[in-house]
Amino acid sequence: MIKPRTPPGVMELLPRDQIAFQQMLDTIRRNFERFGFLPVETPVMELSEMLLTKSGGETERQVYFVQSTGALQNADADAVPELALRFDLTVPLARYVAEHEHDLSFPFRRYQMQRVYRGERAQRGRFREFYQCDIDVIGKDALSVRYDAELPAVIHAVFSELDIGAFTIQLNNRKLMRGFFENLGVDDGERQALMLREVDKLDKRGPDYVRDTLTGAEFGLSADAAQKILDFVQIRSSGHADALAKLDALGSGSATFRQGIAELREVLELVRALGVPEANYAINLSIARGLDYYTGTVYETVLNDYPQIGSICSGGRYENLAGHYTKSHLPGVGISIGLTRLFWQLREAGLVDTADSTVEVLVSQMDEARLPLYLAIAGELRAAGINTEVQLEAKKLGKQFQYADRAGIRFVVVVGEAEEAKGTVAIKDLRKQEQFEVAREELARTLRVELEQARAMAMPGSGA
Amino acid sequence: MIKPRTPPGVMELLPRDQIAFQQMLDTIRRNFERFGFLPVETPVMELSEMLLTKSGGETERQVYFVQSTGALQNADADAVPELALRFDLTVPLARYVAEHEHDLSFPFRRYQMQRVYRGERAQRGRFREFYQCDIDVIGKDALSVRYDAELPAVIHAVFSELDIGAFTIQLNNRKLMRGFFENLGVDDGERQALMLREVDKLDKRGPDYVRDTLTGAEFGLSADAAQKILDFVQIRSSGHADALAKLDALGSGSATFRQGIAELREVLELVRALGVPEANYAINLSIARGLDYYTGTVYETVLNDYPQIGSICSGGRYENLAGHYTKSHLPGVGISIGLTRLFWQLREAGLVDTADSTVEVLVSQMDEARLPLYLAIAGELRAAGINTEVQLEAKKLGKQFQYADRAGIRFVVVVGEAEEAKGTVAIKDLRKQEQFEVAREELARTLRVELEQARAMAMPGSGA
Repeated sequence: MIKPRTPPGVMELLPRDQIAFQQMLDTIRRNFERFGFLPVETPVMELSEMLLTKSGGETERQVYFVQSTGALQNADADAVPELALRFDLTVPLARYVAEHEHDLSFPFRRYQMQRVYRGERAQRGRFREFYQCDIDVIGKDALSVRYDAELPAVIHAVFSELDIGAFTIQLNNRKLMRGFFENLGVDDGERQALMLREVDKLDKRGPDYVRDTLTGAEFGLSADAAQKILDFVQIRSSGHADALAKLDALGSGSATFRQGIAELREVLELVRALGVPEANYAINLSIARGLDYYTGTVYETVLNDYPQIGSICSGGRYENLAGHYTKSHLPGVGISIGLTRLFWQLREAGLVDTADSTVEVLVSQMDEARLPLYLAIAGELRAAGINTEVQLEAKKLGKQFQYADRAGIRFVVVVGEAEEAKGTVAIKDLRKQEQFEVAREELARTLRVELEQARAMAMPGSGA
Repeated sequence: MIKPRTPPGVMELLPRDQIAFQQMLDTIRRNFERFGFLPVETPVMELSEMLLTKSGGETERQVYFVQSTGALQNADADAVPELALRFDLTVPLARYVAEHEHDLSFPFRRYQMQRVYRGERAQRGRFREFYQCDIDVIGKDALSVRYDAELPAVIHAVFSELDIGAFTIQLNNRKLMRGFFENLGVDDGERQALMLREVDKLDKRGPDYVRDTLTGAEFGLSADAAQKILDFVQIRSSGHADALAKLDALGSGSATFRQGIAELREVLELVRALGVPEANYAINLSIARGLDYYTGTVYETVLNDYPQIGSICSGGRYENLAGHYTKSHLPGVGISIGLTRLFWQLREAGLVDTADSTVEVLVSQMDEARLPLYLAIAGELRAAGINTEVQLEAKKLGKQFQYADRAGIRFVVVVGEAEEAKGTVAIKDLRKQEQFEVAREELARTLRVELEQARAMAMPGSGA
């Protein structure tokens, strides 16, 4: 006998947590579709040569390779196996768009919610298998910056409905950062990147450390330039007008700098036109989102009361999605929610409630002889769209209530001799701890009303 | 540059096919939940020792192993890699139930809809990655045969709503088969299995071949016994009363035989009580579903007009789910739909329509200056629960209509100077090829009504 266990680094949930997780997935998907994104799924296995196109970054060192029994036995020890598990959804998207280019309409708006795999060091809260929920808009040749404004509106819709607390979508633009460095005479992208990496340590090591590093031997900036960088990356806005004012105050500079300002301003204006409340977005000029990939707008989203969780939804604009697979120029903009990690963190912070069961009604079994009646009642409830379980095995009624209560099933239907004679059924509401009787033909309608009221109460913004 | 392509043996869909596929997944899930099954997801990777517990059957030879880059470099060529991809959902279920036994309520009713992996020989219509949609009920120590009757009701609900044509759920009971062989003096299970394998060739090779084999040197049955077997496995019913009559006509026999008859009769009675129309179920005494695993009721489901597709939903009763992982006795009953293969076959048979887009409305862009208005309209539609895309890039109106038409978006909203002045919007219905105008404040309500009517029309049984 083998002790049953999962491999390290995966998240497996008990049913009620799985229901809560599934509700989050459903909410995200519903909002992605609401904004006109189309579903795509790709195979979990890609040809290794598709995934390993870039020159060995951190992510590529974490790739999982896949081999069938036969391939394993005949394997050349030094050869890279033919198949690998995807480590994100962006590389598969690039492969997908390039492969199906002539069958897609551009701008191509797709969402994809699947698991990805990374051979991370095993560590609490780090996952080797996790869900990513991505949307991207891919243009052919060009893609208006207007699309950059739509994604914050999606982020706003998703996190409003997920109802996990106040959040801020932080916006920046890589052109603005790049232009700012150019203004200071730092034109070399690589050097900019190295400096940004030091600036990123601001929160952890303080301004003095950063200032000393920037003015030290490696970078050799003047004290004035270092201070300008520190001041720049600490710019945050509070409200729409403040964001515009802070952009105005940046003055002029290189063409790149001015383009960054213009883009960020247009994004801010359209985000407002899309109805995102100004409490939910701000500029934050420290956001860089990695070093190479993003070229324009960048996003991070933080929970105001849980900044330690870090960004819960990030992304940005990139110049060309699929240069490895096609000559077509395919600029895009996208965001990603790492739902497995987010769910784990929310649960750690006590922000995920145990979900009710997906089962809404238990038809109890009072006496075995009435089983056909119970089955008929269950059939009526199911036909009315109510998720219904029937107690099939004989058990004491008290045990049946106890089971429903523990399982998070709210309503128990009880029909005995007395009720059958009267043509009624008794409904026990385990949440309100009350019992009432209705005519048999009113049962489905009554429960539907109760369940719809409960659903309406559970909607965010209802004050419930 | 690399030619973008997927590995062989996977099914990757364009968005409109993906939508059709997703609708099938949603329908299946909705019906699984309707009958009170709870969601479970397990990691795609399991520890190899969890998966490889049985003694090397066909399925185990098809296992895909997984290794991180590090593990690959340090691998002992002869060792089995630590991780493997699941090849079905039953072994993970066994591991899950055994691992979480003390946190689950029994009977435990779970559904699971995830992809599984098999290193099949590459062949048209065979998949190395495919969805399974499973439900199982797991009892502790015992599980009433009543649960065996509930699964046909779920199958009926699922395939009625999937609306892919008339279907029959075929029922048999392994005890009945086993008892029948015992009646003929064949007590050895292995010998029964070998004979069944020959009997299975009936359709392909005809009754004479089977008769000759059974009476030949290997099995040495009498001509009479061989004929009895042939007669037995050809028993099919037509309607509920006929099924019961045919069971009655089987007469008596060993205790196992009589128990098989009693169980099958009870299942038939409860299937009827659950409201499954008698046209949708029948007994078929040839169904065996493999040789070892199933011990009682077995199911296969066939499309009446497409028998060549084979069983589209199969399963049965098993004696003990998780003997490899726990001493607890966990009998269960389950069914599985192999949705990837089914979708592929339905598409080949022309039974899958191209789905409409998930996008329901395109707000077109008549002139760029009105973009904030278009965004506001889109916001209203989304708030009303309508999936809405906005034309963000300037393009000729004709091109916008063409795009919507090709993408399967039914409604296009048009607002120009004239409409704005009147406080109206024009709605073009691309399906009906008609255009009408409504007051701006009536837009969301009007489109909701139209869309709900369309949804109601699309429901099976509506005659649409």
